[in-house]
Amino acid sequence: MSPPGIDTVPAVRCIVKLGGSSATEKDKFETLNEYLLSETAKQLREVFVRSSVRQLTMDWSRGSKADQASHMPEDESSPEILLDMTPFVVVHGAGSFGHFQASKGRVNRGDLAEDFVKAGFVATRISVTKLNHAVVRAFATECIPAVGVSPFCAGWATKNRQLVRENSADVQQLLQAGLLPVLHGDAVLDSGQGCAILSGDVIVRQLAFDLKPSFVVFLTNVPGVYDRPPSDPHAVLLKEIAVEDGDWKIIDPQLEAGLEVQTNVAAHDTTGGMETKIAEAASIADFGIPVLVVETGSSHALEALKGTPLSNRGEWVGTIIRKAIPGELGQ
Amino acid sequence: MSPPGIDTVPAVRCIVKLGGSSATEKDKFETLNEYLLSETAKQLREVFVRSSVRQLTMDWSRGSKADQASHMPEDESSPEILLDMTPFVVVHGAGSFGHFQASKGRVNRGDLAEDFVKAGFVATRISVTKLNHAVVRAFATECIPAVGVSPFCAGWATKNRQLVRENSADVQQLLQAGLLPVLHGDAVLDSGQGCAILSGDVIVRQLAFDLKPSFVVFLTNVPGVYDRPPSDPHAVLLKEIAVEDGDWKIIDPQLEAGLEVQTNVAAHDTTGGMETKIAEAASIADFGIPVLVVETGSSHALEALKGTPLSNRGEWVGTIIRKAIPGELGQ
Repeated sequence: MSPPGIDTVPAVRCIVKLGGSSATEKDKFETLNEYLLSETAKQLREVFVRSSVRQLTMDWSRGSKADQASHMPEDESSPEILLDMTPFVVVHGAGSFGHFQASKGRVNRGDLAEDFVKAGFVATRISVTKLNHAVVRAFATECIPAVGVSPFCAGWATKNRQLVRENSADVQQLLQAGLLPVLHGDAVLDSGQGCAILSGDVIVRQLAFDLKPSFVVFLTNVPGVYDRPPSDPHAVLLKEIAVEDGDWKIIDPQLEAGLEVQTNVAAHDTTGGMETKIAEAASIADFGIPVLVVETGSSHALEALKGTPLSNRGEWVGTIIRKAIPGELGQ
Repeated sequence: MSPPGIDTVPAVRCIVKLGGSSATEKDKFETLNEYLLSETAKQLREVFVRSSVRQLTMDWSRGSKADQASHMPEDESSPEILLDMTPFVVVHGAGSFGHFQASKGRVNRGDLAEDFVKAGFVATRISVTKLNHAVVRAFATECIPAVGVSPFCAGWATKNRQLVRENSADVQQLLQAGLLPVLHGDAVLDSGQGCAILSGDVIVRQLAFDLKPSFVVFLTNVPGVYDRPPSDPHAVLLKEIAVEDGDWKIIDPQLEAGLEVQTNVAAHDTTGGMETKIAEAASIADFGIPVLVVETGSSHALEALKGTPLSNRGEWVGTIIRKAIPGELGQ
C-alpha cells in the first residue's frame, strides 16, 4: 500500500488540537472532562459529519449506548444510513493523563536504559493510551468514524527531543479511507537520548505542514491567547496576531510597544503550556495556514470549527493567528 | 531512526501467542479472564524478566497497585532496581473482544465505503484496543516493560485479506530498547477490498519469519492439539508433529493412517480457530522454528515458556510441532 496518488488525496479541511485541559480535569489525576469531551464530539459531528441516522453510534463496546439499548441499525443494508465526512484530523494533549507518570519517571530526560525511566515510559504510555481510547469512544458515540493512532507505534520518533521521524502519509491514507485519525501527545523512542515526550502541539505543526489543511483550531480551556495569565484581571485577549518569518505582531488590540505576552503554564505540564502552543501556532501561521485559538465547548469553538471567523470575525471571541500581509509588520 | 545494525540486534528468545480464549472469557461479551491473564503475566515475568524489586509495578494509572498503595520506588536513583529482560514478543487474539463487532459489521468482507462496515470497523478497533490496554496493564503490573503496538497504526496492512505490508523492523527496535511489544489481532486497511481482519496467528507467523526466535509458544484454552474436538471423550492429544515442505505427520502417538485431525472452531471466531492455528504453526515449524502448543496458566505453560520440552519432553503435556528430520515423513 503506497501513499495515495495526488489525484485521490482528499483536501484536509481542518486539524483540531484538543488541549489536555479541555478533554480532562487537568488537576484531577486521570479524570476526564466528560462534559467538554461530549460537547466537542457533538460540535465536530455538526461541522464535519453529515449522517442520516442521528442515533447511530460506532461504539459497540460495553458501557456504550449500543450496549445499553439498541442504537445500531439492524443490518448493513439498512437504507437510511448515509455518512459524509469532511476530512479532518484531531490531535489531543494529555492533561491529567500521562503528565504525572512522565514527570515522575523523568521520561523527557530520556535515559531508557535506567530502569526507573523505563518504568515511567511504560506507565506514561498506559495513561495516554487510556485517554486516547476514551476520546475515540466519545467521538464514535457521535457517529464520527474515529480511529486511535498512537504516534509511538505509528512511526513517530525524536532525536534529542526534536521530531526526526514522522508519518503523515499513513494519516493521509486513513483520511482517504473516510476515517478520522485521532493522534495524541505520546512517549516515543528517541535515537539520541533513548526516549522523549512528543507533544501534541509538535504533531499538529508537522501534520499541518504535510497535509496543508485550510486552517487549524486549538481548543483550549480559556477564550484565546492573552497578554498575561488569563487569571490576571488586567489580562487582555489578543484577537489577531500576524506572523512573518518568525516575527509576530499583535494586530488587534493595539498594545503598547514592547509589551511581552505572559503565559500560564501548569507546573506538571511536561511539554510546555501556552508558550509552546503559541510558538507552534505561529510557525503554522507563518506557513500560510491560519490558526484559531478558542475555548472548548463554547459557541465560539463551533464557529471556529466551521472556519467562520476567517472571513467574518464579527462578535467571535478567540484569537486568530495568521500570516502577515506584506509590510504589515513594519519591517 | 534506521533499523538497528546486525551487531546490536538482540536475539529474540520467544514469540508468545496468547489465545483469545486464554485472556478472555470467550463466551462472555468483552469479559477478561483476569485469573489466566494474571497467571500468564506472572509466568512471563518468571521466565523472561529478572527484577530485584518484586513489588515494582509499571502501571501507575488509576486502579493499579501503584495507585492504591505505593509500590513505586521513591525516586529513580533507588539503587535496588535492576531489570534484565530476555527479548520476547507477545501477540494476543481477540476472544470476546472485537469478534462480535467484526462479525456484526462484516469487517472481513471489507467494503469500507459501506457506512455500516465503517461503523463496524471503528467499533472493532475500539474493542480490540480495549483488550490490548488491559493485557499491557496486566503485564506492567508484573514489572514487565510492556508497550501496546496496534498493527492497524503500526504499518500492517492486507490486500484481499492477505498480509502485504508488515513492520517487524519497529518491533525489533522496541526489543532493542528493552521493551516488550504486545501486538494483537486487529482490523486493518486492505488495499484490495477496503478493510480486513488481520489475525494474531498471521502476525505471529510473520514475526517468526522476520525475527527468528528460538521457539514459538501458543497459549490456548486446551492442553494442546487433538485429533478431534477436545470435548470428544475419544479425543487424543497429539504430542509431537513433524512438518516438511507443507506435509506433516503425527510422530507421537502413532495413529492409524489417514486419520484426519478434527478441530473445534467457535462460530463467532472470525479468523478461524484451531485449524488456522495449526496451519500457521506448521508453516513456522517448516521454517525451522519449533512451536509449542500448551494450556494457558498451567505448569506445562511455564515449562513451555522456558523451552524445556524442546530438549526434554519428560512428563510435559502439550504439542510440539517441529521440522521433520530428513526421511522422517517417509517420502
